[in-house]
Amino acid sequence: MKNPFAELVGFALQMGRRGSGACTTTLDVRPELLNPNGVVHGGALFAMADTAMGAALHTTLSQGEYCATVEIKIHFLQPVTKGKLRCRTRLVHRGSRIAVLESHISVGRLQVAQALGTFAIFAPRPQKTSAVAGAKRRRLSQ
Amino acid sequence: MKNPFAELVGFALQMGRRGSGACTTTLDVRPELLNPNGVVHGGALFAMADTAMGAALHTTLSQGEYCATVEIKIHFLQPVTKGKLRCRTRLVHRGSRIAVLESHISVGRLQVAQALGTFAIFAPRPQKTSAVAGAKRRRLSQ
Amino acid sequence: MKNPFAELVGFALQMGRRGSGACTTTLDVRPELLNPNGVVHGGALFAMADTAMGAALHTTLSQGEYCATVEIKIHFLQPVTKGKLRCRTRLVHRGSRIAVLESHISVGRLQVAQALGTFAIFAPRPQKTSAVAGAKRRRLSQ
Amino acid sequence: MKNPFAELVGFALQMGRRGSGACTTTLDVRPELLNPNGVVHGGALFAMADTAMGAALHTTLSQGEYCATVEIKIHFLQPVTKGKLRCRTRLVHRGSRIAVLESHISVGRLQVAQALGTFAIFAPRPQKTSAVAGAKRRRLSQ
Repeated sequence: MKNPFAELVGFALQMGRRGSGACTTTLDVRPELLNPNGVVHGGALFAMADTAMGAALHTTLSQGEYCATVEIKIHFLQPVTKGKLRCRTRLVHRGSRIAVLESHISVGRLQVAQALGTFAIFAPRPQKTSAVAGAKRRRLSQ
Repeated sequence: MKNPFAELVGFALQMGRRGSGACTTTLDVRPELLNPNGVVHGGALFAMADTAMGAALHTTLSQGEYCATVEIKIHFLQPVTKGKLRCRTRLVHRGSRIAVLESHISVGRLQVAQALGTFAIFAPRPQKTSAVAGAKRRRLSQ
Repeated sequence: MKNPFAELVGFALQMGRRGSGACTTTLDVRPELLNPNGVVHGGALFAMADTAMGAALHTTLSQGEYCATVEIKIHFLQPVTKGKLRCRTRLVHRGSRIAVLESHISVGRLQVAQALGTFAIFAPRPQKTSAVAGAKRRRLSQ
Repeated sequence: MKNPFAELVGFALQMGRRGSGACTTTLDVRPELLNPNGVVHGGALFAMADTAMGAALHTTLSQGEYCATVEIKIHFLQPVTKGKLRCRTRLVHRGSRIAVLESHISVGRLQVAQALGTFAIFAPRPQKTSAVAGAKRRRLSQ
């Protein structure tokens, strides 16, 4: 699965096992990732989290399902100037059509950012979609 | 003011006039900005908004003040596959130490993303506060 | 449509006209709404925005559709100790299954809070749901 | 420390020990907390998290310091119609002027909501800073 922007930023992806809802991305800090203050640009950290959330959710998708980012909020806790960034992502909640994921980004033992996001899940097949929607309604109306 | 990551992603910055709290960034979609679904990666849109918010706030900073992103939430409203992205940013609230900014990203007339973020403003003062700022930097760089 | 919590907090709702995606809620500050610092509790402001977003989106729902809050982020810009709170809400984006809304809360001319949220839209009828999902897929895959 | 709005909503607060950065709030679901769909209103869940975050941060404040909510994002994962809500809050990051906290709200073993928020910390100092804090208060109370 080619990801041109991930290649441009330069991070590597280690997807969790099927169904795990987990994914880790890593990125070695290099000069092109810095902002005018000499610290890693928030866009590079965000890109790691966004891609990792999509990949983590992907481990839980059924045949034919796909997902898209709805929104992500990211907090920057510490400036990063060098080292290897590691973004650990986990599934917080998996509904039939909406999922919530969180990412913790760290350099060594120091957490430098945290993100919490929402993804939409699409299930292409009509008959399946209506069944899924039915299940969702039942769950919501409990 | 060199911004290596902005150059890597490829967006241009038009800062608002002094005190305006405004900034516009533009980015021409190109293949390296796409994700595996063939649409512009959220990280590229986020980078435009983050940089634009910092630049918009910068138009309101006094001599010696500087700012840093605390958190940003971005919503992706429409997938983008081509065209020129335009990110318009404005200051929502300017406190003495905290500012809130919002960005609207569009392609032509179609809005494709919206972001709302918080920035911290630091005002190093001659003696005492430069010491405080120093302590802050040490803590931040641990 | 009875809303016990809205009655407990005490805000009034003025829904926009059918299809407007707009709603305004108002709330007179009274002692029970204050936090330990003597300012209106964030939960009261959040409740106004959450209810107003749901009502604003409701003006755009088709027969049988209903909606639920997915997430909302609210920024507190100024403390409020007295006066009439007014929350103006508008639809930012209306997809077939996801909507984004924003609220501005003010007292007189002073903006005191701003919220940006995501809602999910559910369309009960199977055959309709699959048709809607199909339309969504086409739009997303453009 | 009187909290009229917390009393109105009806939740109880168990603050963590000094320095823990932790707090738990609990709330028994009752009819006045419901929204028109018959589930607990998001404003009640938000109020629990907002108060708990402030109280958790308070366990880390020095003499004379105080804090205020900057922004909070809350995700609603499951509808709640009855039972005892428990909101567990922890400090994610404590800077000198900014703190990040997260809350997990559950009913029994089921997580129903998650929040991630930013707080500002104010440290009035004898002369100069109390003047600054005074200016801040004046600005905030305009």
